[in-house]
Amino acid sequence: MKNQKAVKLGILGLGVVGSELVSQIVKNASKIQMETGVSLKIEKIYVQTLHKTRSIDTTGLPLTTNIKDIISNPSINIVCECMGGSGFKLTRDYVLEAMTNGKHVIMSSKKALAKFAELLLITANSHNVHLKYDASVGGGIPIAKVLEHTFKGDKLLKIMGIFNATSNYIYSKMFKENLSFDAALKMAQDKGYAENDPTDDLDGYDSLYKLIILTIFGMNKVIDPSLLVPDSFAGINIKDMKYAEELGYCIKPIAIIKHENSTIEYKIGPCLIPSEHIIANTFNNYNTILIEGENNGDLAFYGQGAGAKPTASAMFDDLMNLLVSPKLKKKFPFSLIDRDIITKYQSKLYWRFTVKNEVGVLSSLTGILAENKINIEKLIQKDEQQDGIEIVLLTSMADTSIAESILYQLNESGIVNNAVIPFV
Amino acid sequence: MKNQKAVKLGILGLGVVGSELVSQIVKNASKIQMETGVSLKIEKIYVQTLHKTRSIDTTGLPLTTNIKDIISNPSINIVCECMGGSGFKLTRDYVLEAMTNGKHVIMSSKKALAKFAELLLITANSHNVHLKYDASVGGGIPIAKVLEHTFKGDKLLKIMGIFNATSNYIYSKMFKENLSFDAALKMAQDKGYAENDPTDDLDGYDSLYKLIILTIFGMNKVIDPSLLVPDSFAGINIKDMKYAEELGYCIKPIAIIKHENSTIEYKIGPCLIPSEHIIANTFNNYNTILIEGENNGDLAFYGQGAGAKPTASAMFDDLMNLLVSPKLKKKFPFSLIDRDIITKYQSKLYWRFTVKNEVGVLSSLTGILAENKINIEKLIQKDEQQDGIEIVLLTSMADTSIAESILYQLNESGIVNNAVIPFV
Repeated sequence: MKNQKAVKLGILGLGVVGSELVSQIVKNASKIQMETGVSLKIEKIYVQTLHKTRSIDTTGLPLTTNIKDIISNPSINIVCECMGGSGFKLTRDYVLEAMTNGKHVIMSSKKALAKFAELLLITANSHNVHLKYDASVGGGIPIAKVLEHTFKGDKLLKIMGIFNATSNYIYSKMFKENLSFDAALKMAQDKGYAENDPTDDLDGYDSLYKLIILTIFGMNKVIDPSLLVPDSFAGINIKDMKYAEELGYCIKPIAIIKHENSTIEYKIGPCLIPSEHIIANTFNNYNTILIEGENNGDLAFYGQGAGAKPTASAMFDDLMNLLVSPKLKKKFPFSLIDRDIITKYQSKLYWRFTVKNEVGVLSSLTGILAENKINIEKLIQKDEQQDGIEIVLLTSMADTSIAESILYQLNESGIVNNAVIPFV
Repeated sequence: MKNQKAVKLGILGLGVVGSELVSQIVKNASKIQMETGVSLKIEKIYVQTLHKTRSIDTTGLPLTTNIKDIISNPSINIVCECMGGSGFKLTRDYVLEAMTNGKHVIMSSKKALAKFAELLLITANSHNVHLKYDASVGGGIPIAKVLEHTFKGDKLLKIMGIFNATSNYIYSKMFKENLSFDAALKMAQDKGYAENDPTDDLDGYDSLYKLIILTIFGMNKVIDPSLLVPDSFAGINIKDMKYAEELGYCIKPIAIIKHENSTIEYKIGPCLIPSEHIIANTFNNYNTILIEGENNGDLAFYGQGAGAKPTASAMFDDLMNLLVSPKLKKKFPFSLIDRDIITKYQSKLYWRFTVKNEVGVLSSLTGILAENKINIEKLIQKDEQQDGIEIVLLTSMADTSIAESILYQLNESGIVNNAVIPFV
């Protein structure tokens, strides 16, 4: 071909995602050339150690342990960041320097992106480079590409979904196989769906970072992660899943943000969702991302939330789109979210109590709730257990912190509160 | 702004979709200018009658009853086709002439697109114009934008989903409210989800056209619609929905195409799908489109399948993307599907029979199936009805036409076959 444009690529990291990305680029070499008219060359791949067993054969690959060979290399046009867990501050620094040196960047590290979004976006805008990020949220779900090309005349009111594949795998196994949280976690670890130390997935921060990234690109709003606090996904009880099912609901590891009337409301944690909801049928390592627009109503996107192949495919597609449209059409507009507009998440609540089988105890419970203006919509008395009678309640709109404020009163009356879970 | 590029738009049709599109363009005038750098002007709107009550105020709108004012007007750059049910051959002719005259076209009419895809694509390619079509499939679901920007290194193996909002509304009402097909159809008509003559939605051709369009843009394969025959969505029995539910399945109005090993297998009609499948939780007027890639696994997209606002939003987004990237990057590559590679859809089958309560009749039934090499996986005997005992069977892989071939044998033995439904 004549006049073929040459583009040089630098790749940061050669873990499972980086290796898969290299494979896809090599495998599709002629397709890239044909469809984009670009002669693409992997110029350098940054690794921490040269000699290490990897998932691909590295013979002939241009490995380097000097990061400057990529981020300060004037011949490199595009940088793909596949640093994974190699330190989010380092990732930020590398991405910033690459952009400052005029390189487009395709990111996969959600933590670095969510925590330093403002700085990264300002830098991308001021150096007229693309910052692509589809691989950082929802694995192979092309949510960023959708947000880039849709909702042009619409306004996004809500983003919600199941973003953490590990928690969802655990919840799915609990529900389907009637397992305790710990037993399902063990199973997830055995199958490679959870780390030996599962904290990062279960403490809710993985979902929080993804929610922040989606809010940036869907609503053009940057939220400092330190302004949000997730609930933990850990420790959910199979009993509550079963009781929820009887009521027509599932318990799922949810993240949700609503932006209406100049306020932001959010929740990250276990939530009840109607069993017939599109999100309810998201099982195992799958994710579903739902966005609600004024004109479009609900749109939902379902796919594998993690895994080297879907994640690398998301990066490969970003790369192809960048090769076809390298010119930055416009700077990315965004504004910062002020902490004052973030309000508490309000919803109906599910409660489970254990009460002594004594005269007047139910009257105490309902009395305490009434005193605190909590309106009971449904009360179900379950069979007697060893430690008392179980009571399941659904109450009307409130925020979950109301539970803490009445704990003392409940304890005084011999009522144990086992669970308070919001609805979506 | 200086040096603003001016683009002139022609709109064909001012029904509910055309009117909503005009509204969105007017409402977002300054946004269009700011985000695309283009000064967009609605130059002409083609209508059949000037004086007619419409859903928007037409005062000041540049209406014309002369189609040439748009499709042969050298000053018009982009044509939005919102002809709806105004005749698919006329739509084809208008679109062809517009493209031949160098105009980009954003289409919404699925029948014209599906039936004349080859001619339309050849014309778009030879005149170097864009042919956008996201509004023709799945209303507000941005499936075309996804297919345009993803799966660059992947191969699509399967497309399936619920594409017809009317049938899905009827099936949903039947299932949730325990109604007969006719009662649910009446309800759909009363609510405006079905036409007085619902043939076009219920005979399966609406889904067939959408499946063909998705196959074009997802697999780059054009199939002549006359090579495919849909089953009707009408006449499904609530009994079968309830029996399917007991077995862990839903019955949904499905369209599916698989492309593997150089063969094409398809089915359009009622199908059983596991109740836990992401598609199973698609109710009322919503659609879900699922695509399966070699690398990406399953991806599914859910949203309102019809309605003026979602459909017009899809066209508005196509328009905005076109204004940002007017240059055609490459011609659309496609090939024609040969009729020889289309094979019969094979799946497990669900059967419902009524048999007389007599000695040996069950033995006759199982005997006839065995003779025809139909392997029974599950047999459930239901309560006795007025006309006999109901038997529900699940059998292993076969195509539904096998039922027809044994009807005579069954009748001879006093066995009535009430339903044969494939699985997905």
